[in-house]
Amino acid sequence: MITLNEARSIIAAAEAMADEIGQPMNIAVADWGGHLIAHVRMDGAWFGSVDIAIKKAFTARAFDISTCDLAKLARDGGDFFGIDASNQGRVMIFAGGIPLCREGRAVGAIGVSGGLGAQDQSVAEAGTAYFAARELPVAA
Amino acid sequence: MITLNEARSIIAAAEAMADEIGQPMNIAVADWGGHLIAHVRMDGAWFGSVDIAIKKAFTARAFDISTCDLAKLARDGGDFFGIDASNQGRVMIFAGGIPLCREGRAVGAIGVSGGLGAQDQSVAEAGTAYFAARELPVAA
Amino acid sequence: MITLNEARSIIAAAEAMADEIGQPMNIAVADWGGHLIAHVRMDGAWFGSVDIAIKKAFTARAFDISTCDLAKLARDGGDFFGIDASNQGRVMIFAGGIPLCREGRAVGAIGVSGGLGAQDQSVAEAGTAYFAARELPVAA
Amino acid sequence: MITLNEARSIIAAAEAMADEIGQPMNIAVADWGGHLIAHVRMDGAWFGSVDIAIKKAFTARAFDISTCDLAKLARDGGDFFGIDASNQGRVMIFAGGIPLCREGRAVGAIGVSGGLGAQDQSVAEAGTAYFAARELPVAA
Repeated sequence: MITLNEARSIIAAAEAMADEIGQPMNIAVADWGGHLIAHVRMDGAWFGSVDIAIKKAFTARAFDISTCDLAKLARDGGDFFGIDASNQGRVMIFAGGIPLCREGRAVGAIGVSGGLGAQDQSVAEAGTAYFAARELPVAA
Repeated sequence: MITLNEARSIIAAAEAMADEIGQPMNIAVADWGGHLIAHVRMDGAWFGSVDIAIKKAFTARAFDISTCDLAKLARDGGDFFGIDASNQGRVMIFAGGIPLCREGRAVGAIGVSGGLGAQDQSVAEAGTAYFAARELPVAA
Repeated sequence: MITLNEARSIIAAAEAMADEIGQPMNIAVADWGGHLIAHVRMDGAWFGSVDIAIKKAFTARAFDISTCDLAKLARDGGDFFGIDASNQGRVMIFAGGIPLCREGRAVGAIGVSGGLGAQDQSVAEAGTAYFAARELPVAA
Repeated sequence: MITLNEARSIIAAAEAMADEIGQPMNIAVADWGGHLIAHVRMDGAWFGSVDIAIKKAFTARAFDISTCDLAKLARDGGDFFGIDASNQGRVMIFAGGIPLCREGRAVGAIGVSGGLGAQDQSVAEAGTAYFAARELPVAA
């Protein structure tokens, strides 16, 4: 399980990247069940993206896939075209949601919304990179 | 904040344009939070467009973008393809919603629905042009 | 049918009453089909009441009853207890919605929200009274 | 407007109270428009309360009332019985949501969910008390 403290640290890492690229973001961290643990909307970020960030985290965990990869499958002609009509509108099919893994298994997810796709993705990756780095064995 | 009187004046300016192009419209003005301040449905306008006009105003403020520009990003293959599944179905991704700005910051939005995209857009622009003109410094 | 001009006059009459009792209100007028013709949120009125005013007007026309009367039927033990679960959540069961009648037939409705029940009701009644008075034959 | 830093401080004050009473909580802070600024779910708190906390904050701002007071009006026979059917299910009618005021005007709201009514309320009050205290004039 991801603790609230861990979620806060993941968010802090993502926020630092958002500051670096100069784009205020909504950042959400969800647990194993896809349910929200913590969320922040940085000053100046769109309020319409609150819901999107939370749902990107849900989606990434619901299907254990980054929403960036899901996007390709959900396009017209793709295997999952129309998947966004499922789950009561909680499935987001554009970049910014990534599963959070521990010992090779998804235990949660991060969702980011507030910029263009590549921006959301890089901020989400900053969060997952932080979480992954914490797992590395300490070198002797 | 936008007052009711201001919202009425914005709507009047938009109505005048709708009369000029001969297409009855639904016109809505929302506040900073995307919440409706005032709405009119001109005689003969579609009742199915009531909801659309109100939601175009919500969308324009929620993401500080015209729904005309959002439309391009929300197409198949675009960065925001699938965004209309968010926010409980309140995100409209076709022309007619524009933020209303004061001193360079969005303080509300107008949403127009009742005709084709270019018609909705021109009526919404008449509303925003009126609001922008009010801000001009008085010439000496 | 109720025209936009008529809806505006009904709203003006209701607004005057709201000013008189000193409580800012949301005021909505719906057509024969229960669909919104016009809405205003007076400065300082709750944004949570936008939806309620619009739905009170819908409800009053949907069942040709004042929501004040419907409230009695919708209480626990009443004939219509639970009716608010119908119509996708658009049925409001507290005072402030009244049908608008012409020649004895309902042609629309007014919905008011922003104060306590008696306040909403008196403002809605001011709107219906205005509409009824317009129909009186001119005295010789 | 409430900044993210302010929201975090409000949440920290509320969390401290939740720790004191030994009940893990969901705590949400919303802006003027009722939109989420930040949320935390304390370790062990119900995930079903995520949505409730966020909606209590929305409700408190939407009607500028504590959900504790709204609860009384929303009971069977009360002026607002049935109000929870409005606003697409976002109206929560039990204790835990309180407006956040600055210079006497509501600028946001806090919503708390995770315990019984009195617990949620006391944690929300800890948040609002912190925010109010920040406004006190500095003693000479």
